Amino acid sequence: MLLIKIGGGQTINWEGVCQDIKLLWEKEKVILVHGASKTRNELAQKLGVQVKTVTSPSGIQSVYTDQELLDVFLMAYPGLVNKKIVALLQRNGLEAIGLSGVDGRLWQAKPKKDLLVQEENRVKLLTGNLTGRVEIINVNLIKLLLDHNYLPVICSPAISFEGEIVNTDNDWAVAMMAEALKVKRLVILFDKPGLLRDLSDETTLIKRIDKDRLEDFFQYAAGRMQKKIMGIKRAIEGGVEAVFLSDGRAPSPVLSALAGLGTVIN
Amino acid sequence: MLLIKIGGGQTINWEGVCQDIKLLWEKEKVILVHGASKTRNELAQKLGVQVKTVTSPSGIQSVYTDQELLDVFLMAYPGLVNKKIVALLQRNGLEAIGLSGVDGRLWQAKPKKDLLVQEENRVKLLTGNLTGRVEIINVNLIKLLLDHNYLPVICSPAISFEGEIVNTDNDWAVAMMAEALKVKRLVILFDKPGLLRDLSDETTLIKRIDKDRLEDFFQYAAGRMQKKIMGIKRAIEGGVEAVFLSDGRAPSPVLSALAGLGTVIN
Repeated sequence: MLLIKIGGGQTINWEGVCQDIKLLWEKEKVILVHGASKTRNELAQKLGVQVKTVTSPSGIQSVYTDQELLDVFLMAYPGLVNKKIVALLQRNGLEAIGLSGVDGRLWQAKPKKDLLVQEENRVKLLTGNLTGRVEIINVNLIKLLLDHNYLPVICSPAISFEGEIVNTDNDWAVAMMAEALKVKRLVILFDKPGLLRDLSDETTLIKRIDKDRLEDFFQYAAGRMQKKIMGIKRAIEGGVEAVFLSDGRAPSPVLSALAGLGTVIN
Repeated sequence: MLLIKIGGGQTINWEGVCQDIKLLWEKEKVILVHGASKTRNELAQKLGVQVKTVTSPSGIQSVYTDQELLDVFLMAYPGLVNKKIVALLQRNGLEAIGLSGVDGRLWQAKPKKDLLVQEENRVKLLTGNLTGRVEIINVNLIKLLLDHNYLPVICSPAISFEGEIVNTDNDWAVAMMAEALKVKRLVILFDKPGLLRDLSDETTLIKRIDKDRLEDFFQYAAGRMQKKIMGIKRAIEGGVEAVFLSDGRAPSPVLSALAGLGTVIN
């Protein structure tokens, strides 16, 4: 079983991704998780809703989610982006089903309403953050769909234990899914060739990372990449044997990733 | 098996609907189909997208759907509204799964790109309408979910035979589902007590209509009600034995409908 996570940038070669999955599907089951951050941000701007990115005291960036922004999430992730990906997969001959973490309580999360935020030299407490960390995966639902030849196409948000819709960290949710489903290989596609020593220079690709030495490479993770690396660390702790961090813009993004053209963590 | 269709008005008593379904669920399987027209229209207005309602030469109203409006559909129906209903059902103890007609090609539709439109004394041809009429239902997917105790919560859009996302007439799709799933009882909830002789007077409820004489009552169907009645006619032709057209604003909307408090067509 192959788990593929695709970032929310709009330069992803989705046609290529679909064709690759179609080829792989003959041999093994695939689960797809996608982001939609670029669409979310564009939509938020059109609607005049602020996307507030905050930084924790330990330097990790995340988005503060109020009800207004959560609504934008719902419009962008399970609405606009998920359905277009599902339709594209179907045009490529795959029986795709789009699901958010809310559906069938696929991703159950522990709410995390309070957020410590570093603002210059002060640490501030933000309350009412509609977010949570995924802890429980509805494994039965995913297996049910895979067993009947449906390709699950999954995205945020998640649902809290109390049944509230909450924004969640996709990379962490992917790690939880990998562990729950005993996935051994995880492909992560985004709009870079892999992990770079110098973010401004795409020729500085780090080709391989020993999975036991991942922490040594945290220094190269900037911005949104921090959460990706933390998710990868958690996925490896959960039993994943190889992570392929690779270029979603490539002609055959998934096959290229598996062929080791990006950063291989194993 | 009970099929419940709920209109897209925002005065629906959703808490009541959830509680009713929870009670019914112990005895029989339920499938829920919902609209989101009010949310769609509000969102279109915020985004400056025009919702163009047109009238056919035979006097039937429908919405002309271009790509911009289809995007608004995706944001409102499977995005914002569907997920909130799913979460609410889960808070009421039901394992709901939200699906659009696109997912698993649940609603396959024949595209209908050209639209004849009556404008004053002229008939005009509008092309490029991203809409279709549902012809094939993925019965296996619905049964698979019901057999595993999941409650399907279904909405527009549909997918064309060629894999394009298309807007579709919910009422017609419901009729197709009823026939494909051999549903005998159909509940339709909206923001009126039932079919009214005088639309401006809620005391003029038509209590019962003989299902073989439905056409005699077309004269009382105005605006969006026309398509509802046409859908009901098709559902009856497909084998539905009783249709309960009833008030979604009532304290127990589904139980009241089944108890015959609205318009009963049988």
